[in-house]
Amino acid sequence: MIRLEDVKSRAERDAKSRGINLTPDENLLQSLLEGLKTNEERYGYPSCPCRMASGDFETDRDIICPCDYRDPDVAEYGACYCSLYVDDEVHEGKKDVHAIPERRPYEKQMASLGLEGQEVKEKISGELEESTRRLLYCRQCGYVVFREEPPYVCPICQAKREMFEEIVALSEHYSRKIE
Amino acid sequence: MIRLEDVKSRAERDAKSRGINLTPDENLLQSLLEGLKTNEERYGYPSCPCRMASGDFETDRDIICPCDYRDPDVAEYGACYCSLYVDDEVHEGKKDVHAIPERRPYEKQMASLGLEGQEVKEKISGELEESTRRLLYCRQCGYVVFREEPPYVCPICQAKREMFEEIVALSEHYSRKIE
Amino acid sequence: MIRLEDVKSRAERDAKSRGINLTPDENLLQSLLEGLKTNEERYGYPSCPCRMASGDFETDRDIICPCDYRDPDVAEYGACYCSLYVDDEVHEGKKDVHAIPERRPYEKQMASLGLEGQEVKEKISGELEESTRRLLYCRQCGYVVFREEPPYVCPICQAKREMFEEIVALSEHYSRKIE
Repeated sequence: MIRLEDVKSRAERDAKSRGINLTPDENLLQSLLEGLKTNEERYGYPSCPCRMASGDFETDRDIICPCDYRDPDVAEYGACYCSLYVDDEVHEGKKDVHAIPERRPYEKQMASLGLEGQEVKEKISGELEESTRRLLYCRQCGYVVFREEPPYVCPICQAKREMFEEIVALSEHYSRKIE
Repeated sequence: MIRLEDVKSRAERDAKSRGINLTPDENLLQSLLEGLKTNEERYGYPSCPCRMASGDFETDRDIICPCDYRDPDVAEYGACYCSLYVDDEVHEGKKDVHAIPERRPYEKQMASLGLEGQEVKEKISGELEESTRRLLYCRQCGYVVFREEPPYVCPICQAKREMFEEIVALSEHYSRKIE
Repeated sequence: MIRLEDVKSRAERDAKSRGINLTPDENLLQSLLEGLKTNEERYGYPSCPCRMASGDFETDRDIICPCDYRDPDVAEYGACYCSLYVDDEVHEGKKDVHAIPERRPYEKQMASLGLEGQEVKEKISGELEESTRRLLYCRQCGYVVFREEPPYVCPICQAKREMFEEIVALSEHYSRKIE
């Protein structure tokens, strides 16, 4: 049993820790938090209340809230896809939120719906765990992540996705130490 | 000589950066900051002012402020063990803080008091440096840490400890590149 | 074409996410944001508006805003070198900002000006990409970065640079798994 107040304070802390805000629309907020609570009880993780989840962790991982698309959407449109998270201007009513285009890749949307071919599904789900995750780092600040693709925005220094590279020299560097 | 104002502004920045607050109780705040200052001068690191430190860095590492237990305690009880850090509801007086149970494992408490057997002490202190730290990552956002055990809460995406896994495929992946 | 409002809201989010503020001096703020915009359009990255950039990414990396020196300068002086980022006391007018000494190493300043010998330039620029970056971690919280030198302040737990160490046992640890 997940408590709604815990879902709310987690979202509040998360917003503040990234310099953004929860929506000032109380009705919208309440309904999104209840959606998160329902999803967390159903799937074991709080997937996005505005998107269809598959129930398979690897397929859904990019839409677990805060989703992979939140930070670039807040940066570009002032709000995430759901408008749960908004920037200062939207929060203070200085800017309106219009429809946020879906940034999630089409094949991931299809996978969530179970509509893709078997190969696609395997590619997205099964293999990820073993082989396609890799160590990536932000060339600007050095932040390291283990993911398939870099985050859209570096959570430490705000650099764009293009600033990330794979760490490929690591094993050579360290293998020297073994000898 | 550590300046109290520096201890205070570091704690303030740290609280804000995580979306939480310092206690609104000025007397408590003053006394906790002085405890942190004293510990930092004595040990070289600001260990928790409410817990007994051993003076051995590896033994005390989990209780260096912000301690390993702060984030889950603030999430669950609205305050850390000392009540130095509190959530919004406690800060605004909407929620009271009751006694926070000690989340630190019993064997670490014993180690701090120097009461454990020699083997335990070696296990906690000596070996850590070399062999038990490992690369762990958050399956939700990819955040990477080098620790014995995952953090209780991912500092980047707020996922729970259960979301962390060890990076085990790394060397195979990278060793392929060496050949 | 970079929009000034995007430069501003990125800086605002970044300040809040670290528990600090943008300068309250509106004229200074405007001029620094325009400097960042100009640099980002010219070089492809928002290098510090108060320092001379070379246009070579590796040479300039430490002065891409937020620069490597911001966090220790805000901690020690209440403001970064430009005074774009300030702490709470400066923001509220309780503390004045005096001249912030340049923390950037002399050889990096020379490299930016193109005044160093060829070897120095190669050392700073060319080699970095391949060999001198290494996995470093914060002994206090486990935060991992891939950089030449540790950050001055851990962005996750606020520990000082001295708390960082290189991960050297990694490949031995993992190479055991290969066999």
